[in-house]
Amino acid sequence: MNWTVYLSGEIHTGWRQRVIQGAESYNLPVTFTSAVTDHAASDAAGDVLGGENENFWRDHKSSKVNAIRTKTLIENCDIAIVRFGDQYKQWNAAFDAGFCAALGKPYITLHDEEFIHPLKEVDASAMAWSRSPEQVVEILKYVTSA
Amino acid sequence: MNWTVYLSGEIHTGWRQRVIQGAESYNLPVTFTSAVTDHAASDAAGDVLGGENENFWRDHKSSKVNAIRTKTLIENCDIAIVRFGDQYKQWNAAFDAGFCAALGKPYITLHDEEFIHPLKEVDASAMAWSRSPEQVVEILKYVTSA
Amino acid sequence: MNWTVYLSGEIHTGWRQRVIQGAESYNLPVTFTSAVTDHAASDAAGDVLGGENENFWRDHKSSKVNAIRTKTLIENCDIAIVRFGDQYKQWNAAFDAGFCAALGKPYITLHDEEFIHPLKEVDASAMAWSRSPEQVVEILKYVTSA
Amino acid sequence: MNWTVYLSGEIHTGWRQRVIQGAESYNLPVTFTSAVTDHAASDAAGDVLGGENENFWRDHKSSKVNAIRTKTLIENCDIAIVRFGDQYKQWNAAFDAGFCAALGKPYITLHDEEFIHPLKEVDASAMAWSRSPEQVVEILKYVTSA
Amino acid sequence: MNWTVYLSGEIHTGWRQRVIQGAESYNLPVTFTSAVTDHAASDAAGDVLGGENENFWRDHKSSKVNAIRTKTLIENCDIAIVRFGDQYKQWNAAFDAGFCAALGKPYITLHDEEFIHPLKEVDASAMAWSRSPEQVVEILKYVTSA
Amino acid sequence: MNWTVYLSGEIHTGWRQRVIQGAESYNLPVTFTSAVTDHAASDAAGDVLGGENENFWRDHKSSKVNAIRTKTLIENCDIAIVRFGDQYKQWNAAFDAGFCAALGKPYITLHDEEFIHPLKEVDASAMAWSRSPEQVVEILKYVTSA
Amino acid sequence: MNWTVYLSGEIHTGWRQRVIQGAESYNLPVTFTSAVTDHAASDAAGDVLGGENENFWRDHKSSKVNAIRTKTLIENCDIAIVRFGDQYKQWNAAFDAGFCAALGKPYITLHDEEFIHPLKEVDASAMAWSRSPEQVVEILKYVTSA
Amino acid sequence: MNWTVYLSGEIHTGWRQRVIQGAESYNLPVTFTSAVTDHAASDAAGDVLGGENENFWRDHKSSKVNAIRTKTLIENCDIAIVRFGDQYKQWNAAFDAGFCAALGKPYITLHDEEFIHPLKEVDASAMAWSRSPEQVVEILKYVTSA
Repeated sequence: MNWTVYLSGEIHTGWRQRVIQGAESYNLPVTFTSAVTDHAASDAAGDVLGGENENFWRDHKSSKVNAIRTKTLIENCDIAIVRFGDQYKQWNAAFDAGFCAALGKPYITLHDEEFIHPLKEVDASAMAWSRSPEQVVEILKYVTSA
Repeated sequence: MNWTVYLSGEIHTGWRQRVIQGAESYNLPVTFTSAVTDHAASDAAGDVLGGENENFWRDHKSSKVNAIRTKTLIENCDIAIVRFGDQYKQWNAAFDAGFCAALGKPYITLHDEEFIHPLKEVDASAMAWSRSPEQVVEILKYVTSA
Repeated sequence: MNWTVYLSGEIHTGWRQRVIQGAESYNLPVTFTSAVTDHAASDAAGDVLGGENENFWRDHKSSKVNAIRTKTLIENCDIAIVRFGDQYKQWNAAFDAGFCAALGKPYITLHDEEFIHPLKEVDASAMAWSRSPEQVVEILKYVTSA
Repeated sequence: MNWTVYLSGEIHTGWRQRVIQGAESYNLPVTFTSAVTDHAASDAAGDVLGGENENFWRDHKSSKVNAIRTKTLIENCDIAIVRFGDQYKQWNAAFDAGFCAALGKPYITLHDEEFIHPLKEVDASAMAWSRSPEQVVEILKYVTSA
Repeated sequence: MNWTVYLSGEIHTGWRQRVIQGAESYNLPVTFTSAVTDHAASDAAGDVLGGENENFWRDHKSSKVNAIRTKTLIENCDIAIVRFGDQYKQWNAAFDAGFCAALGKPYITLHDEEFIHPLKEVDASAMAWSRSPEQVVEILKYVTSA
Repeated sequence: MNWTVYLSGEIHTGWRQRVIQGAESYNLPVTFTSAVTDHAASDAAGDVLGGENENFWRDHKSSKVNAIRTKTLIENCDIAIVRFGDQYKQWNAAFDAGFCAALGKPYITLHDEEFIHPLKEVDASAMAWSRSPEQVVEILKYVTSA
Repeated sequence: MNWTVYLSGEIHTGWRQRVIQGAESYNLPVTFTSAVTDHAASDAAGDVLGGENENFWRDHKSSKVNAIRTKTLIENCDIAIVRFGDQYKQWNAAFDAGFCAALGKPYITLHDEEFIHPLKEVDASAMAWSRSPEQVVEILKYVTSA
Repeated sequence: MNWTVYLSGEIHTGWRQRVIQGAESYNLPVTFTSAVTDHAASDAAGDVLGGENENFWRDHKSSKVNAIRTKTLIENCDIAIVRFGDQYKQWNAAFDAGFCAALGKPYITLHDEEFIHPLKEVDASAMAWSRSPEQVVEILKYVTSA
């Protein structure tokens, strides 16, 4: 079986690359998917449909266009990794985790110890809590191999 | 039809009471449900099952006990109101929104303008964005009456 | 068993009343539900959340508020009656029919012979095609009695 | 991932070809599906099963044969594009949109500004509203690439 | 808990009454539902919508009207009893059994030994095979009591 | 798209071969599946698990082994063809039709005119009624081509 | 909201009564359901349908009759309590836990420390592990109150 | 069709190899999947995420990591074989059986006669009970061939 792994959350550090390269180094049977991670492009996803004067509606349009992609990829993944970094609100990552939980889609969180308490509900529905991309890779290796 | 409305999110201001009292003043056919909103009690929900030395596991145990309640109430509600205030991470509120989205459960967000951008994905799946408990009450009145 | 019947479509003639009164005259075990049928109120359903300069967004906001009601009522009904009159585009009625079809919710269409051809796909998934509110009442009487 | 995109609605203009050719020009990982778009063939889909004297039943038989194809293709698509032109009733397009909405299948509408108001319920459940096939292509490019 | 029991199949003998009276004699917490069991009325269920020249379409119309009732009642029941007598084809009873099987709805067959072989697929998905209405009553008593 | 078509019912005439050969002659993108159609082998499907003294249990064991195959193939098919011949009870064919109906799986019946009345419930949920394998082939050609 | 709690597992000690009496002492809004807990009656559940010479088939018949009850009650419960004692194989309790897990039905295990390792998979999908009926009562009190 | 068969339960005897080799000797169109069957590795599955002082939490972490694999493989299989040997509690095997039952996933049990009574509920939902790996192979051959 080839496993599809959706990488959700933080887009400002290189955690995705560390997970992907680690999986490649082990030659794991894994395909990675993700939202569009170019921040400016993501914010502008709906602009081609016409400009908006109100920030709310520009964000709304772009978010819905992005959701065509993210909802489909999450529904099609076997496992999601949900990353919380130390910047920004990152409510979209928690939203993805809740979405996975309701679908019964197994997910692994990736965050530092300082967020244990505010992420307790998110972690309670997760299958594992990891602290580094390398731990994620080890779990993927274990789960998809043998 | 009697409507069940789940109130999710912020527990440190009186927004729940304002929504509930507004609905009562209109005599709406609405029953409200909610997580346990006593912060200390919620954090200690699992303590009766035995103490823990690790913060992670104490939080884990309590969060799972709380989830028995919250998951059941969300699955049984007709509408959810998801409130984001200006304090704390509030990832549990975004998690609830994602959970509702995946279930096809309609939800209304309640937050200030300053959170438009970080909540754009959460708002994109919502049926409405409101800025005050009074607006929520008006929407509930419209939706459940006539 | 008490049956819940959702009345979808045309809001400019008295067909709803004729169905409801017919059912009452037979004392059928039926509860009727419906979208908000006050056209002006329906168009303004989202105005309480703030005004909009763009027609598209005003309509969008109001339609989503209305959908909280209609989606919930359709999901909770046992039977839907979908009425097509001779005015307006009435795409919302066809939308409701498609929504029912995907849910496996039985629905009965109510329209004149002139619409047989343009409604052929809608009728193909219906459980019955009726030409008058009185026929609808007779079907409800047969289905819910004995 | 290869994406399957169902093209619903208007069969009298060349919008399908413009979407398909645009996608090909970008070499997008997209497969397009559609109802049978030959009007006469579609109306006669059931004739092989025997002739009918009543228009209603001829339409009924043909529509059910067509629905074997359309229902299956919609359930198997990742995204639907629903086109409303300026001729005919086009209730089947709105029916498809409602079907998609109930399945949680993301769809994009394609129509002119003049239909904003009559299509407000259909647009309210859509992920995007586009005004030209070229906009559809750009959205597909964004969603399926990167 | 009150149990709803759907009685499917043969309408020419008094087995329904024997089951119902047996349940009443034990005062079981059971509500019984059923298709319309008046044969002539059932065949004429669609006549109010207009006459038909073709037998096929008359049957078709009536069967769809009947299906509004039977599909809803089967989906709402907790247990179905499916009776096969010694007359007629009774394909509708087998159809109901298949419908229950796909829904995961538990059903009990009621038929004589002579039908063991032709009903082997129907019995294979049943929770029990009974030979008399009195056995059905005993099973209902056991299942719904204590 | 390649279509999977399940052939259910009668095993004593050559209708399956006529459908399969017709599809091959048109080179349709169709894969056919079926229950084991060797009557003796089918009746003996469970014998390898040990002999039985009671007819009921021998049939029961074999039917459950057969159901592993048939249930899986029906759930995986896109279209089912359900054939009723003029011999035997054929309750398993009606059972398969009910199973398809509950799953929302489109099916086409294949039977002579003499069975219109006893099959009216089975036909009411079908997408088409055909009278010859050649008609089935034409429908498959129309549905899967273009 | 009134909560339905299914009590699964061990039938040879008084844990059910201790849970029920504890809930009553707190006047909790809880209704308890359970399999038939009379061992001899449960083993004989199918005997009314006729005797069997083979132990396997007697057990099979009775277990299916019991499953009409247990499957329905589990599907209708809000929470399940799954008790493992120190006698017998108790595979039915683990089966119920797996059934709950697949349905997304929250369950609480009740067992001694000695079973931590053999029950690790069952506990991994549980919402809580309790060691005494009194702990169960406290959790029910917390979850259903306030 | 290629069939995926999940092998659940006992990891201390060679039954998996006997099933796999038997299937290979017949060249069956079957792919086998399984939990990680290295006992020590399975118990240590979560250790990479950090050590634990409490046995319960070490088991909990490892079991959840294992469940990412097992839940996914069971949901993706067509048939499960559930083996009960004569050692250990084997509650995880019964848990898998219950999980399959709730999903409507057909499974075959593999166990000796001595376990007929304690496994009666597990067998009641199974499609077949086998006593040897060779019987399993014969059933797979029958089900997947022809």
